[in-house]
Amino acid sequence: MRIDIISAVPQLLESPLKHSIVGNAQDEDLVEIHTHDLRDYTEDKHNKVDDYPYGGGAGMVLTPQPIFSCIEHLQSQRNYDEIIFTAPNGTPFKQEDANKLSTDKNLIFLCGHYKGVDQRVIDSLITKTYSIGDYVLSGGELPALVMVDSIVRVLPGVLGDSESALTDSFQNEKLLEGPVYTRPAEFKGIEVPEVLRSGDHQKVKEWRHQQSLERTKEVRPDIYKKFRNEQ
Amino acid sequence: MRIDIISAVPQLLESPLKHSIVGNAQDEDLVEIHTHDLRDYTEDKHNKVDDYPYGGGAGMVLTPQPIFSCIEHLQSQRNYDEIIFTAPNGTPFKQEDANKLSTDKNLIFLCGHYKGVDQRVIDSLITKTYSIGDYVLSGGELPALVMVDSIVRVLPGVLGDSESALTDSFQNEKLLEGPVYTRPAEFKGIEVPEVLRSGDHQKVKEWRHQQSLERTKEVRPDIYKKFRNEQ
Repeated sequence: MRIDIISAVPQLLESPLKHSIVGNAQDEDLVEIHTHDLRDYTEDKHNKVDDYPYGGGAGMVLTPQPIFSCIEHLQSQRNYDEIIFTAPNGTPFKQEDANKLSTDKNLIFLCGHYKGVDQRVIDSLITKTYSIGDYVLSGGELPALVMVDSIVRVLPGVLGDSESALTDSFQNEKLLEGPVYTRPAEFKGIEVPEVLRSGDHQKVKEWRHQQSLERTKEVRPDIYKKFRNEQ
Repeated sequence: MRIDIISAVPQLLESPLKHSIVGNAQDEDLVEIHTHDLRDYTEDKHNKVDDYPYGGGAGMVLTPQPIFSCIEHLQSQRNYDEIIFTAPNGTPFKQEDANKLSTDKNLIFLCGHYKGVDQRVIDSLITKTYSIGDYVLSGGELPALVMVDSIVRVLPGVLGDSESALTDSFQNEKLLEGPVYTRPAEFKGIEVPEVLRSGDHQKVKEWRHQQSLERTKEVRPDIYKKFRNEQ
């Protein structure tokens, strides 16, 4: 898989792409990630990539020319399955979107910045606009990194133990995960629940399922209700 | 405001904290952000910060000792308003949480990694567990960065033009933002809508409201319905 990320602040993308699971996946050639600086594509003599919005109001808007030039340049080299824009007015991004996108070959992420991106870019080039949640951020860089992380970690071979991805929240039965415990058995006088130390796999499984149910019911009644209806 | 971020992979946090609005806010002393490496707090002779989960299963769990040591060290120096953990089984993080947290003085973010964090940390130290969306990531670092960004950008003085934050999606009337356009008036044969170039502020305002309504109705029927009920 190849991922291209286009940004007006590509330096911001550096460290999250270099470390941990996304960094390792690149080192092992399981994914290729390239970042592109919009300023390298502007034809403006002052190197500008943004301008004031038509109709007035606060905030700057990314101009269409550098974005068109960058995306058309990439498209001249290969076919892209999706050209994704990150914005709070997009479709909510879910685990199933990550799973689906992980089967694609070439993806472009365009990061919005400032007030947004000229609508002509969205109408002409963008195939999907996603929002990662109901909050506003200073740019689309963190949302692109979030989506890239969620996609890369489900690529075959990326997680050492493939079971790990499958038992996560939103994958297994669509329930939230319950509590986990590790060594020591007692810490500051608080003990790990007996059942987890019992060695009885069936009981552990039942306990975990029960904890998942309770956690989901408490924190996400919407998911709990959906789960109940599907049983 | 002071923010402390605790992580097993603090290098991952570097570039997003250094650039753009969060970087500028620190340069202008509007916020102070410190990152802490869990490995600096482990008493394990092999410098380990994680171990296998009790009860078996895939993935590693962050051990309680380094986290307790780090948080207790920070708490000995000042009072913290919230100690926030980032996990997919948390309460969904929303713009109103960002607004509320932006009025606090001292915040700690603990980033989960691998399979999670020993539950005794959550039960004893954590005051809020947030999820930034219904997808799974390889760690809590990106979620912490997302929350920090959303909090910092609403701090007084951070955005040059304070109107910009208030007209965002989820702030103004709780509707999604509609399209924005900038120069040039015509690009690749596509023109900016006439009304935005008319100079008629009332008409621009009406057009924008109508576009917001349509966008919200199309992409987020849940938000649209709530908005309609409140009218």
